[in-house]
Amino acid sequence: MSTKERWLLPDGVEEILPAEARRVEHLRRRLLDLFETWGYEFVMPPLIEYLESLLVGASRDLDTQTFKVTDHLTGRLMGVRPDMTPQAARLDAHYLKRGAPTRLCYVGSVLRTKPDGFGGSREPLQLGAELFGHGGPEADAEILSLMIESLRLAEIREAHFDLGHVGVFRGLATQAKLNAEQEMDLFDALQRKASNDVEAVLAASDAPATSKRMLAGLLDLSGGREVLARARKQWREAPRPVTRALDELEAVADRVAKRSGAPALYFDLAELSGYHYYTGVVFSAFVPGYGQAIARGGRYDGIGRAFGRDRAATGFGADLRQWLRVSAMAAPVLTGILAPNGDDTALQDEVARLRAEGQRVVTRLPGDKSPASESGCDRELVKKGGRWVIETVK
Amino acid sequence: MSTKERWLLPDGVEEILPAEARRVEHLRRRLLDLFETWGYEFVMPPLIEYLESLLVGASRDLDTQTFKVTDHLTGRLMGVRPDMTPQAARLDAHYLKRGAPTRLCYVGSVLRTKPDGFGGSREPLQLGAELFGHGGPEADAEILSLMIESLRLAEIREAHFDLGHVGVFRGLATQAKLNAEQEMDLFDALQRKASNDVEAVLAASDAPATSKRMLAGLLDLSGGREVLARARKQWREAPRPVTRALDELEAVADRVAKRSGAPALYFDLAELSGYHYYTGVVFSAFVPGYGQAIARGGRYDGIGRAFGRDRAATGFGADLRQWLRVSAMAAPVLTGILAPNGDDTALQDEVARLRAEGQRVVTRLPGDKSPASESGCDRELVKKGGRWVIETVK
Repeated sequence: MSTKERWLLPDGVEEILPAEARRVEHLRRRLLDLFETWGYEFVMPPLIEYLESLLVGASRDLDTQTFKVTDHLTGRLMGVRPDMTPQAARLDAHYLKRGAPTRLCYVGSVLRTKPDGFGGSREPLQLGAELFGHGGPEADAEILSLMIESLRLAEIREAHFDLGHVGVFRGLATQAKLNAEQEMDLFDALQRKASNDVEAVLAASDAPATSKRMLAGLLDLSGGREVLARARKQWREAPRPVTRALDELEAVADRVAKRSGAPALYFDLAELSGYHYYTGVVFSAFVPGYGQAIARGGRYDGIGRAFGRDRAATGFGADLRQWLRVSAMAAPVLTGILAPNGDDTALQDEVARLRAEGQRVVTRLPGDKSPASESGCDRELVKKGGRWVIETVK
Repeated sequence: MSTKERWLLPDGVEEILPAEARRVEHLRRRLLDLFETWGYEFVMPPLIEYLESLLVGASRDLDTQTFKVTDHLTGRLMGVRPDMTPQAARLDAHYLKRGAPTRLCYVGSVLRTKPDGFGGSREPLQLGAELFGHGGPEADAEILSLMIESLRLAEIREAHFDLGHVGVFRGLATQAKLNAEQEMDLFDALQRKASNDVEAVLAASDAPATSKRMLAGLLDLSGGREVLARARKQWREAPRPVTRALDELEAVADRVAKRSGAPALYFDLAELSGYHYYTGVVFSAFVPGYGQAIARGGRYDGIGRAFGRDRAATGFGADLRQWLRVSAMAAPVLTGILAPNGDDTALQDEVARLRAEGQRVVTRLPGDKSPASESGCDRELVKKGGRWVIETVK
């Protein structure tokens, strides 16, 4: 294998070099600090686990997205985590077991077998915040507000937010008594926003006329706040779960609009991504010119059941690397002081003092004649009149 | 699979719960900040790579320690990194290509197939600092000083440091003209500190008497600074590489002793761990009551050759999780203010203001009656005389 081939990285896998790593670390700290001020406790779940634990409650395609390896000690199959959300749910359900609502957050690398989702990367740096143990819209609103605040902190501008509720389609489909195949066909047609196909599936079904009308109307119910009013008007005959879904959506939107400084909120009642995973309000963040969501979240009650504790759950997640691609945040500027190499005690003391102050001090090694700028230094430590003083590099 | 089995984690794999995660994050930040003040630039190499790149220059047993998976896109074999050092070397050799000495640092999870080394863990949180492009003892001394300073910052007390040099055995064995099998037998015997076996291997060889005497003397050459003087006395007939190794060792020890506030330095001229990997001075840190090294480093010139650039290299590495097991550092204390849930604008503004100040403010969700302490809160926000004020929880 040639030298050239040896450093080729697999598709969707990247090195993060110093300037970009400074940005990542800076944003990582700011976001964890923000989560902390909101009461979210940082946890660090493992990178690898037995496959059965790892995929509990995860969306279905995560199985094929997981790199699998054999445990040399037991022969059992393990997976490298493709998602940290189920891990946080296990922590809540199994390890912490608190009665009170529990807020957890995390940031860490996850691996995916294929570079889809998360912006073409196979190694997203997953960031997430989860609130367990509270089923009310207040909890969903807190998570959405935190997501909005996080994007602001990351200097991601012009973000807008799409809100939906999986209870809408679920309730209407149940009332329409579609068979499994019809429901799946309708689901597919709605996801593709293909109104002709939606009409065709409904026409072929025995659903009552009111159900057909309400389901067919789903595709028109996207847009601003007025969507909720229109839905209420069109869906006077909707079953209770559907009107409750609208109530929840409205309650979340109201609270968030009031608290998060007029974020751009949009509603899409036919929004079905993550349908098999989420159980209530769902939301995604988008920015202009970027095709996919840069953050998503929502309610996913019951994920802890597999770990012995059926807890309400809501949360959001994102890929920090993707955020940095759309963020206006600059890398912290690198500055520093170049110090000569020597055994002079006064010099050593001065270097130690400057470093303790938080200054970046690079020691010039014998024989190194490179300019100070190559070490990111804009000043140097020089001896003048018997004392060590800092001078700007000319 | 029962609920109980589902949460069992593989051996050597752990959850890090909130209190411990706070310690990890606290120490992680302090150490990265320290590295920054010494001019070490943070980099983030990928978690997964093609196997050939990953194992370049790595010690031999790392191959069996690597979890291997197939790249679904190309069918090529990839590995989850078991060590980040070769990755840093590639960054230096291939991506940065600077003329000046280059200082890099990193912290990140690595995976091992078996829970050996690094304190029984299969997921060490590897911390490292590497200095590329300078072959002098000044560079080794800088790395050892930084390692000592890092341990101090981590509040790991009573650490002592064992120094050696792989050039000692290499030079003596070359002079003795041992055949490959004899050299390997002698190497094994020295590693086991088995003096009888050392004598037996030497007796069976055709090595000159002076070589035999010097090699047999290796096992006695461990202890304090006087070891170096004894070695010089006993090894008057040693070949040039051996005396040069002693010179380098002495130069490193001198500089470190002067700069790092009298660390406990010991010398072991028969120290051979990492022999096939290191090329010069080697050092390890130990603490009382803990059987294995908690940090190790040394010179490993030439690692960049496989990436097209033969650079001098010295560095150190450690497992941050292992450090926390022996550290006296307490977790940062969790405090916080419990705020009621409500739409009162004055309340919202006060919560936002406190959070912006860095205060941890937990909003009590409707129906939650748990004590403030369950959310880590020692104060609460209450309305008194029309104003929101903070009171200590009774």
